[in-house]
Amino acid sequence: MMLIADNFQITRPSIAKAVGNLDTAGIQEMVARWLAAGAQAIDINPGPLPKDPERSMTFLVETIAAACRLPLLLDTVNPAAIRAALEVASSQAIINGLSLEPQKLERILPLALRFKVPVICYLLRSDGHVPSDAQGRLEIALQLWQEVARHGLEPDQFIVDPVLVPLGWADGSNQAMEVLATLRYLPDVLGFTPKTIVGLSNLTTGSPSRQCRLAMEQAYLPMLVASGIRMLLMNIEHRQTVAMARNCNLLSSRAIFSWQQVAF
Amino acid sequence: MMLIADNFQITRPSIAKAVGNLDTAGIQEMVARWLAAGAQAIDINPGPLPKDPERSMTFLVETIAAACRLPLLLDTVNPAAIRAALEVASSQAIINGLSLEPQKLERILPLALRFKVPVICYLLRSDGHVPSDAQGRLEIALQLWQEVARHGLEPDQFIVDPVLVPLGWADGSNQAMEVLATLRYLPDVLGFTPKTIVGLSNLTTGSPSRQCRLAMEQAYLPMLVASGIRMLLMNIEHRQTVAMARNCNLLSSRAIFSWQQVAF
Repeated sequence: MMLIADNFQITRPSIAKAVGNLDTAGIQEMVARWLAAGAQAIDINPGPLPKDPERSMTFLVETIAAACRLPLLLDTVNPAAIRAALEVASSQAIINGLSLEPQKLERILPLALRFKVPVICYLLRSDGHVPSDAQGRLEIALQLWQEVARHGLEPDQFIVDPVLVPLGWADGSNQAMEVLATLRYLPDVLGFTPKTIVGLSNLTTGSPSRQCRLAMEQAYLPMLVASGIRMLLMNIEHRQTVAMARNCNLLSSRAIFSWQQVAF
Repeated sequence: MMLIADNFQITRPSIAKAVGNLDTAGIQEMVARWLAAGAQAIDINPGPLPKDPERSMTFLVETIAAACRLPLLLDTVNPAAIRAALEVASSQAIINGLSLEPQKLERILPLALRFKVPVICYLLRSDGHVPSDAQGRLEIALQLWQEVARHGLEPDQFIVDPVLVPLGWADGSNQAMEVLATLRYLPDVLGFTPKTIVGLSNLTTGSPSRQCRLAMEQAYLPMLVASGIRMLLMNIEHRQTVAMARNCNLLSSRAIFSWQQVAF
């Protein structure tokens, strides 16, 4: 399981400030910190970028790529920003993301095809809503795969996100279990084993404390691993959750185990 | 998932001393502590009881049952001790356990049938060895179920233990993953969903530190829950592992979630 930092979010004041000031050194310091914390890829969420999307996104991608050689997830709904990023960094880019929503299929799928990059495909209905159970998600997975494959997307470019919702939703814990079932049955439904990703931070949106957040992240993370998850988008500054992820990787690797590898 | 304390083991000096002295108050104090820590059942492992098995086991069962109304797991290979325990406490007893080993089928299975109590069935080969993978375990599960059912054991008396081995074994992490696969496929193989149990403490036998032990227990426990485990035999004095078990139960219950229920 690859660990992807979700820490670069424009909604966080420190990120907004660094981006607003085009603070190259400040951004690269943050990236170095995430790298040291265990990030194996970085999600860049610059918001919708209403003004000057190409220039902003190019600045971010070049600044971050200069500080690390990690894959970069281009996490914006703005196709012009995605295209600009792919022009400077397609060799290490992943588009985040696509769904059955028509405007995304029309404007984002062609970029994945043209630049031959992987794309995260959300199991959302075409109206953007979350299905209520695993069956709904699996039906969408098949429909979405048929749609993107028809246009030429390769299986190894297809990364499935079954869409985790906050535990605080009325059916939050049920949805968390349905996400696990979705992960487990995807290979049967698709006829191949796709890469999969989940946004772990979504689970604890609305948590009243850091302690609660960490406890539930750490309970759910190994369940994702037991269900076959391949990539995890997470707050890489949650040290204990990163340690849990590493210990889960020790188990699921099936390699010779050594107690010296255990993380804390 | 029901939490069962594995703390009553004659190999622990404090337990051996309390049993040797027939220290009723000392034993009942320990039981009260385990109850407060979250035990929902107690495994009584008095060793092989070469001398006076009936009297020793009757003393233990009566002493522990007087301190709690929890189910008691009779964890001895001595059939005379099991029978004596069942005579005083069959209403709350579970036999631990049975396997394809001929002497157990001959001497322990009849006790489960006569007293109509559940029995834990280990997925071991008839020579007592652990199968190397899930397929081996599932073949044994079917063979064992057919054998016990032929004698009249009911499905709800049949509790499957897929046998977790220490991570320190050459194939320890692989075996841990095969145990998860076994749990997942048991319903398909048997044609019904049996109760299942795993001895979590086995995983960390040989751990160099308490910190290592807790870290790996907590990583593996949610994987068991995601794979459908129903009962967990564990060190109930590992407070953080109990908290993890409770948080996993919150998730797997699919009930309305409240952040106030999160355990630490």
